[in-house]
Amino acid sequence: MKNQKVIDVYNGLVVKFKELVSEYEIDHNDYQALVDWMDQLGRAGEIPLFMDVFFETHALQEMYKSVKGTEPTILGPYYIENTPVVQNPGMLPQRENEPGDALYFSGSVKDVNGNPLANTKIDMWQADANGEYSYFAEGIPNDNLRGVFYTDANGNFEIKTVVPGNYSIPTDGPSGQFLKWIDHHAFRPAHLHLLFQPENGDRLVTQIYFEGDEYLENDVAQGVRGSLITKLEKHSGAEKGLKNDYYTAHLDFELRLQDKPVFNKAVVKN
Amino acid sequence: MKNQKVIDVYNGLVVKFKELVSEYEIDHNDYQALVDWMDQLGRAGEIPLFMDVFFETHALQEMYKSVKGTEPTILGPYYIENTPVVQNPGMLPQRENEPGDALYFSGSVKDVNGNPLANTKIDMWQADANGEYSYFAEGIPNDNLRGVFYTDANGNFEIKTVVPGNYSIPTDGPSGQFLKWIDHHAFRPAHLHLLFQPENGDRLVTQIYFEGDEYLENDVAQGVRGSLITKLEKHSGAEKGLKNDYYTAHLDFELRLQDKPVFNKAVVKN
Repeated sequence: MKNQKVIDVYNGLVVKFKELVSEYEIDHNDYQALVDWMDQLGRAGEIPLFMDVFFETHALQEMYKSVKGTEPTILGPYYIENTPVVQNPGMLPQRENEPGDALYFSGSVKDVNGNPLANTKIDMWQADANGEYSYFAEGIPNDNLRGVFYTDANGNFEIKTVVPGNYSIPTDGPSGQFLKWIDHHAFRPAHLHLLFQPENGDRLVTQIYFEGDEYLENDVAQGVRGSLITKLEKHSGAEKGLKNDYYTAHLDFELRLQDKPVFNKAVVKN
Repeated sequence: MKNQKVIDVYNGLVVKFKELVSEYEIDHNDYQALVDWMDQLGRAGEIPLFMDVFFETHALQEMYKSVKGTEPTILGPYYIENTPVVQNPGMLPQRENEPGDALYFSGSVKDVNGNPLANTKIDMWQADANGEYSYFAEGIPNDNLRGVFYTDANGNFEIKTVVPGNYSIPTDGPSGQFLKWIDHHAFRPAHLHLLFQPENGDRLVTQIYFEGDEYLENDVAQGVRGSLITKLEKHSGAEKGLKNDYYTAHLDFELRLQDKPVFNKAVVKN
């Protein structure tokens, strides 16, 4: 079905594409090399990866540049819908001997005027201590370190999980080739993914980072926002009679309560 | 290996991408729908098709906007290297009962100062009378209606082939979905592809179109250039004692004799 916005965006993109050709003196051999590489990227199934690592953060910064509330950052290619609902306080699904250190991550959820938001749906997902995601790495059970929970009556939550590892984007395909061209490493700082869906409001897609991570300032995906960095507090397990030490981390979130997303004009839906 | 041009073009593209997000109010749902569709396009192997139909002509117009000589137009996704060498005058490889009307296509090849260019290598390829290309449609022998020949001592050539049919881009995949969004038919006017490689000069990638074709002014790939339209002249076979009528067409070409392509800075080569 005809979609005027696709027509407008395509025409706008053609103008910018021609500017790019002129400004950077892209010749026909360059064009063909670019298309060949894009074809490899597409056939390898790496387009979501490439776009989310190299473009999504820029799109979000432009979309939300004058919007109040907690800063959004990239959704990335590893979100899975409809993962198991867990209790709050509770624990993300994990293996019996899940590698890594235990982490109790807590937060409060309010609107931008400071009112607590009860019963807000939160999707949480993350890499394991080795930097690998369930559904995308082999040998990890489905839904591992993924779950959905709801804020309590005061807008709070606390979820037990493990401290995530640094994640490396795959380097053996066309996205890895691109990294060689731009001379950049493949790592993201360790992070937790959160997707908030308040009962009456726009969703917030964001991530949590941790102070001291060596990749905070050179994240391959440029997804870090200063306001999303929190501290990993180490606690002695022995004091509580536990076998292992554990960590806690906390962040407060502010959601916008508008009923429409920023911009809100469908581009490529039917 | 580090490639400064890739870095520069990527950074330039990010700026233009952000402008596009703002100017067209592309929201995060739009972004995700776009990436999903691009992923389908890539996995279907349609990126070369999509790029060559919807972007290549614009790239070429920008690259060659102030360059003398015969106008280039799109290479398209159906070029095959190293097809059989045929005599000049001669005939493109074809089936014993190749469908369609015989066509004798002739041309002269000169430099932009009018000097004939002898021994210029020319690749020629085309759809058959049904609009289908060998190597890409089933049931057609490899190299059918594809060949390489060289201009004679006076820079002339004459090749027997068949009148090509109108070509429709595939409509059953993501590129067809895009056509529905932009509300456009899938057809290109009938055309011959030619790639000239003079002994000392830049290659010319171009196509020949025919007067009266219903798709000249609304080519899905916007590849038509007025200077590349020639006339199909019909001739009575009976006058020459032939069973069938046949066609002739002619065009003169002017090649640039520079040793480098326009612009000439590799983007995505190692």
